[in-house]
Amino acid sequence: MGTMGNDEGGRTAVTVVGLGLMGRALAAALLRAGHRTTVWNRTASKADELLAEGALFAPSVHDAVTAAPLVVFCVSDHDALHDLLAPLDGAALDGHTLVNLTSGTPAQARETAAWAAARGAAYLDGGIMATPQEVGTPAAHVVVCGPRQALEPHRPVLSALAGGTTHLGEDHGLVALHEMAVMALMWSTLNGFLQGAALLGAAGVDAGAFVPYARQGAEAVTGWLADHARQIDAGGYPVLDATLGTHLTSMRNLVLESEALGVSTELPRLVAGFADRAVAGGHGGDSYAALIEEFRNPAPGRPGAPRSEQPEE
Amino acid sequence: MGTMGNDEGGRTAVTVVGLGLMGRALAAALLRAGHRTTVWNRTASKADELLAEGALFAPSVHDAVTAAPLVVFCVSDHDALHDLLAPLDGAALDGHTLVNLTSGTPAQARETAAWAAARGAAYLDGGIMATPQEVGTPAAHVVVCGPRQALEPHRPVLSALAGGTTHLGEDHGLVALHEMAVMALMWSTLNGFLQGAALLGAAGVDAGAFVPYARQGAEAVTGWLADHARQIDAGGYPVLDATLGTHLTSMRNLVLESEALGVSTELPRLVAGFADRAVAGGHGGDSYAALIEEFRNPAPGRPGAPRSEQPEE
Repeated sequence: MGTMGNDEGGRTAVTVVGLGLMGRALAAALLRAGHRTTVWNRTASKADELLAEGALFAPSVHDAVTAAPLVVFCVSDHDALHDLLAPLDGAALDGHTLVNLTSGTPAQARETAAWAAARGAAYLDGGIMATPQEVGTPAAHVVVCGPRQALEPHRPVLSALAGGTTHLGEDHGLVALHEMAVMALMWSTLNGFLQGAALLGAAGVDAGAFVPYARQGAEAVTGWLADHARQIDAGGYPVLDATLGTHLTSMRNLVLESEALGVSTELPRLVAGFADRAVAGGHGGDSYAALIEEFRNPAPGRPGAPRSEQPEE
Repeated sequence: MGTMGNDEGGRTAVTVVGLGLMGRALAAALLRAGHRTTVWNRTASKADELLAEGALFAPSVHDAVTAAPLVVFCVSDHDALHDLLAPLDGAALDGHTLVNLTSGTPAQARETAAWAAARGAAYLDGGIMATPQEVGTPAAHVVVCGPRQALEPHRPVLSALAGGTTHLGEDHGLVALHEMAVMALMWSTLNGFLQGAALLGAAGVDAGAFVPYARQGAEAVTGWLADHARQIDAGGYPVLDATLGTHLTSMRNLVLESEALGVSTELPRLVAGFADRAVAGGHGGDSYAALIEEFRNPAPGRPGAPRSEQPEE
């Protein structure tokens, strides 16, 4: 398989399927790196610029897949990927490595990997941490998961896309799980901003006036994450600045103030609730990182909590 | 009052009460700027270095307050401030301006302002956005609220403490409210990180390995805040990247994945709940900023929600 589809000049063959903004950026970066790049897209006109730069347009998905040992997919989701691949005859995928750079859930990634394996193809679930403009520059970073042995032969080609390629592990769900974890952080940060904007708005302060203070707060927190992570991984939470008990007092004040100003208290109550349980559990003198135990373990009586076992008598 | 306590050389007199790390940094910056600086602290030895640099130690809080027109307090909280000031005879505070740089709630700040006003003192609630090391440098920033006319005569002295002094408004609660809003953002960001760390931890990934991705996510969000604020202030939410409907699909996947991995689903459910209501309210095609309406208005049937009014028949 090592030279499958590579041309006589020794250029490595690679295929990109899906030519949205990101797919076009990927193909352009591969072309700039001198790879023999085959592309396919349902709307062929999306490939016009790439063809002018030397790309080959495959007349069908079958031809696109069989043109190169490495096939990069950048379509809207796993359903779209299956719609493209399902009609191919079984032999078309055999011996190829598929890299899927579209988002999905860990379960979808594992299902697609099993589906591909049944057809003799190796599957790498991936993501590119970059804007389309950053693709092919050191600012871009590729993450992949799945069998490392499927990745290694293709590292040189993938290096055209980004400053680095990180293998997150063999589990096909890991890239999607990292994306979910980052989204959890992003949504929660935005919700904290909205809570603050709602509070200040009730006092007549524009959201725009809150931005510089919010940015400074977000940047401060970002600087603490490494220390918190160290404590989480070590399983000990010696206080770094304020204790969780001190935070809890301020969190309760946030609930009261939100109530007084007539804005939603849902997020403040959730925040205080986690700290309340941690303090009740003996973490009042610990650092904020001690809350990890509340996030790891569903609270008793809440959705998702394991039923408590009866102690034996 | 203009020259109260100023010396013959024309140096401005100023007092600092409370010589913790931050109080000492404040007094040191005032001394470096050439101001006649009187200090007081319950444990007098905390003043030793400052006295060597030219500070005057007041033998009592009464003497400290009466030594200068501007008295800066940096004690642990409003209760500590009241404990210090309550024993003074009424005339001691008359005509002085008190700047309180310790944290509290908006209600506490307003109470302290009223208490001071009854004794003829102007009150400015304030905060210094800086580490003690940054005090007196352009990296520090002072925010104050309360009567602007009480601030203006003292701007030259306060300029010794920071690169700038921002007056947030006449309402004495505004500094505390800004601090709460920033804390809401910080707690929420940290909780998002903990949710992500719990998810990845359940899949065997260390929190430390999550940090670079978490930082990148937090930095990306920080960059969006100004755009979101503009939409909030304009009251319109044209989509910037993903629609709220698309986010909601991913949020529901986060709930399912948290459940599948046995970690807490409380934060993911709250996140999805806000989006769910916003989408149900017609914001599915809008940007994330449309959620501000959910944060402004307590959800019906939830704590803090106004009782719904019966439509007239």
